[in-house]
Amino acid sequence: MSIVRDDETLDDLQLGGLCVIQKKEGFRFGVDAVLLANFAKVKSGDRVIDLCSGTGVIPFIIEGKKSPQYICGLEIQQDMVEMAKRSVIYNKLEEKMQFVNGDLKDESLLKDLGRFNVVTVNPPYKLKNSGITNLKDKDAIARHEILCTLEDVIKACRTLLKDNGRMYMVHRPDRLVDIVTLMRKYKIEPKRIRMVHPSAGKAPNIVLVEGQRDGGKFLKWDEPLYVHKADGSYTEEIEKIYGRIK
Amino acid sequence: MSIVRDDETLDDLQLGGLCVIQKKEGFRFGVDAVLLANFAKVKSGDRVIDLCSGTGVIPFIIEGKKSPQYICGLEIQQDMVEMAKRSVIYNKLEEKMQFVNGDLKDESLLKDLGRFNVVTVNPPYKLKNSGITNLKDKDAIARHEILCTLEDVIKACRTLLKDNGRMYMVHRPDRLVDIVTLMRKYKIEPKRIRMVHPSAGKAPNIVLVEGQRDGGKFLKWDEPLYVHKADGSYTEEIEKIYGRIK
Repeated sequence: MSIVRDDETLDDLQLGGLCVIQKKEGFRFGVDAVLLANFAKVKSGDRVIDLCSGTGVIPFIIEGKKSPQYICGLEIQQDMVEMAKRSVIYNKLEEKMQFVNGDLKDESLLKDLGRFNVVTVNPPYKLKNSGITNLKDKDAIARHEILCTLEDVIKACRTLLKDNGRMYMVHRPDRLVDIVTLMRKYKIEPKRIRMVHPSAGKAPNIVLVEGQRDGGKFLKWDEPLYVHKADGSYTEEIEKIYGRIK
Repeated sequence: MSIVRDDETLDDLQLGGLCVIQKKEGFRFGVDAVLLANFAKVKSGDRVIDLCSGTGVIPFIIEGKKSPQYICGLEIQQDMVEMAKRSVIYNKLEEKMQFVNGDLKDESLLKDLGRFNVVTVNPPYKLKNSGITNLKDKDAIARHEILCTLEDVIKACRTLLKDNGRMYMVHRPDRLVDIVTLMRKYKIEPKRIRMVHPSAGKAPNIVLVEGQRDGGKFLKWDEPLYVHKADGSYTEEIEKIYGRIK
């Protein structure tokens, strides 16, 4: 039986031949995941875990760029984990990558996974009650806070991080106050924020946040990231980190 | 005796002839105060109070633009209040503007001042322990958290605001997490944020925040404000709101 099925695509991440399997129809990774994987500071000796990992695009990009010691992806939807596991086999990364089907609210599971230097997460953005028709729909689960809330996610980061470990989250700017107040609640200090704008002069529509477990108070704002130039084409920075894998 | 003294200047705000008295040397109002006065949404029927008011530039700009029902400025440094009071006389605004010498930590004073639709504040930006040589220096008091902390300021906003009244603060982006967590603590919900950048592509160096007393959770990000164009000249927006009074 083929590793890639008829209703799936094999998408080349343009990182030394790494590929990720996705459904042709349904939830496919977007610019947010790619930006987060590039925002995260990962060292070669790090243990990394990606929450709400979906088909695993963030772990594969991080592997392609930094090749840390070990990368785990945690995802609650079993069929996505099954696809990610086939991507691991396809990329011959069984010795350093692992995908786990489980719930980030399951504290005993988290303890079994151990502690990590880096946690990345591209969580569901939308509140549970915002226009969902089917609570079991896979797309809805990936996009809405149906199976986990923002607080569940940040609490799990606290549990999974080693002392002074760092978390990286991508989200919508309209939730930034919720994000930073919850981070403070769970003693993960926001240390760096980068706003992503559709183009210069436009309001931001994506926010990237770095936090440090028990970190001291000092917040740095990165230069803004613009996705498009005035003429509608991608900016050089986006071409570098995303354009190539469009 | 002249209203304006030898060591002072009379600066025209280019708003229907309004002027403000400042010392030639010492703390003079800057772009931050002007941006805040323009960021604040004030209606003609509003009662407005400006905290950490200094020589009163924010109240005078708001008067010039919106002419609300009543404007008060609260300032702890007596000589600045005395200058602001002479500016009131110079501008013939005794019937609707008042400057009060007092401490925003004085709860009984705040109760005497009544409740307001709008509170504006351009507080000291720097932490008390960051490079001060003289704790009684007037400049140091205006710039450092010597006589009031960020928490004192936000607590005073809570006390002074009417139900659903709005506060407007200008500060440094590196304090944004402190600002929004303290606003939540005192049940003033952050509703709108505008970042000010030296120019497009640069990290923000000023943040403008609007909060609403007991407001519902919904945060809007305004388009960023750029101070300079690529050629170093002021942008059109800055020319409109600030360049004219430079």
